[in-house]
Amino acid sequence: MFKRVAIVGATGAVGQDFINILQQRKLPMQDVVMLASARSAGKKITFGGTEHTVQELTDKSFEGVDLALFSAGGSISKTFARIAAAAGAIVVDNSSAFRMDPDVPLVVPEINPQDMTSHKGIIANPNCSTIIMLVPLWPIHQANRIQRVIVSTYQAVSGAGYQAMLDMEQQSRDVLAGKKPEPKVLPHITGFNLFSHNSDIGPDGFNGEETKMVHETRKIFHDPDIQVCPTCVRVPVLRAHSESMNLTLTRPITEQEARDLICRGQGLKIVDDRANNYFPMPIDASGQDDVLVGRIRMDPTVPDNRGLCLFVCGDQLRKGAALNAVQIAEKILEMGLVKA
Amino acid sequence: MFKRVAIVGATGAVGQDFINILQQRKLPMQDVVMLASARSAGKKITFGGTEHTVQELTDKSFEGVDLALFSAGGSISKTFARIAAAAGAIVVDNSSAFRMDPDVPLVVPEINPQDMTSHKGIIANPNCSTIIMLVPLWPIHQANRIQRVIVSTYQAVSGAGYQAMLDMEQQSRDVLAGKKPEPKVLPHITGFNLFSHNSDIGPDGFNGEETKMVHETRKIFHDPDIQVCPTCVRVPVLRAHSESMNLTLTRPITEQEARDLICRGQGLKIVDDRANNYFPMPIDASGQDDVLVGRIRMDPTVPDNRGLCLFVCGDQLRKGAALNAVQIAEKILEMGLVKA
Repeated sequence: MFKRVAIVGATGAVGQDFINILQQRKLPMQDVVMLASARSAGKKITFGGTEHTVQELTDKSFEGVDLALFSAGGSISKTFARIAAAAGAIVVDNSSAFRMDPDVPLVVPEINPQDMTSHKGIIANPNCSTIIMLVPLWPIHQANRIQRVIVSTYQAVSGAGYQAMLDMEQQSRDVLAGKKPEPKVLPHITGFNLFSHNSDIGPDGFNGEETKMVHETRKIFHDPDIQVCPTCVRVPVLRAHSESMNLTLTRPITEQEARDLICRGQGLKIVDDRANNYFPMPIDASGQDDVLVGRIRMDPTVPDNRGLCLFVCGDQLRKGAALNAVQIAEKILEMGLVKA
Repeated sequence: MFKRVAIVGATGAVGQDFINILQQRKLPMQDVVMLASARSAGKKITFGGTEHTVQELTDKSFEGVDLALFSAGGSISKTFARIAAAAGAIVVDNSSAFRMDPDVPLVVPEINPQDMTSHKGIIANPNCSTIIMLVPLWPIHQANRIQRVIVSTYQAVSGAGYQAMLDMEQQSRDVLAGKKPEPKVLPHITGFNLFSHNSDIGPDGFNGEETKMVHETRKIFHDPDIQVCPTCVRVPVLRAHSESMNLTLTRPITEQEARDLICRGQGLKIVDDRANNYFPMPIDASGQDDVLVGRIRMDPTVPDNRGLCLFVCGDQLRKGAALNAVQIAEKILEMGLVKA
């Protein structure tokens, strides 16, 4: 059992999902403290039947805290995660601040929980698009190494936070009323429009989100040679990400073998009803723990039956963020990593 | 000049775009006749400043018609296109009914206008996703043969007709009002949701839309060996399709060479501003003739610098349908194919 759990960024979109999921999954803990910026301090949040007042995040916030769940953005993590770790907490950080730090395990509990044993106070939660991609790929990769992944994403606006969701709704109302929408959170119109992910573009032409998917995959799979070529796109969907993938495997596979491997994987649900044309949809993935997997078919453009196509959907705020972090916390207890 | 142009399906979404584009581009003609089902007969459509009454489509509708633009679905085309051709018209058919018929040229005017010289009365307009994919690929393919295309689409609901667009708007209103949307046109919810294209799935797991993209590409490019692996997805966007593509070329290419080739291509506009994160978006492609091309970058997962990524958007109702058909009609005149 954790003695005291701190939720940093308790009033954000992911923070609220943290709170919901912690309650649903009944993570064993004696006490909780809700932390946020000065602007949100004083707000009330009900947790476990008790009302908690949101406190301002400061250097002193982590006394007696043994688990700190951070979801307040990279700069807050950079400033406060080491402070929390120094105060004795294990930090599970949802930002990108520490993901590629060689001293920080980057963990999807279905894939590499053993990496947590070497933690030095901070454990990083991967990027949402990475998690939703890798959970279905892992059982395939273990049986028949994936050499190459081509992935195009269909990412919900929730990835840009709660305000982006509200803004998309307002923009959609404007479009429906014949008014010109004015984007206030993301740089482009989200109402009935889509656009290339708004993270910075590197010299190779890939944006930050895509580069994360490449490097995080290699770290989580412990496979520095796996080739990933992503194209990340934001679509007018509220909270579940979809991804269209083309895989090149090392050895031949059949559709049935792929299906069997995915069936036996953890955190996955096959939704692949060709007769009724029913496949993974964001609306069905929203609020679900499992990543939905469908459109499982051979890619005939890869020689020797080594090509496979998949279409997957996962709740960006749950498995893509808060759920994965809470599952990490559960593993911390299960593996006896929490300090006595 | 055409003596008499028939517009079959004049009251549908594509039909209305036919009418707009014929007027904008001033296709030379003496007379026009608007044809539709009995249900729509009697409606008034203004064309060239004159009001025309929509007439019911019958066997006798094509007397004196030398150009018939069909956009009323495959079954209407199957029944009436040969009747129109027998009456002396050249049919430009927007349905899939005749596309793979070896006697019917399948034409994108920027790519294979010469195929029209062997027409036998019917010329087919390709599938919208095919056209929007192939216009940007053609200048690359001519310089450096494309061996393989991996493509994931983001298709607007306009592809399912005008009623699907209205239905998506109504569903979106319902979602925004906290009500459960009830899809009336497409089989799944289109309001803030996306789903695998609703065409029938073949034994290989590919749906009809995807299979069209494979076979039509081979016919239009006169390249039976080009490998295409599509995943077609409908997204909550009104009228422009987007496509994320990964190409494998025969010889090495540089990003600059790719850019130069696309620049010199017809019907294309490069929108690729990395500094301002501005790339092709459906909202910018809507109402435009050109296919917008961006995210031009090397795919480092293909060896020997033979991999290229692109993200494109094109107006599904214009270049994806009516504009391409009207451009075919212009070529018919230009090439002197119309009967005297």
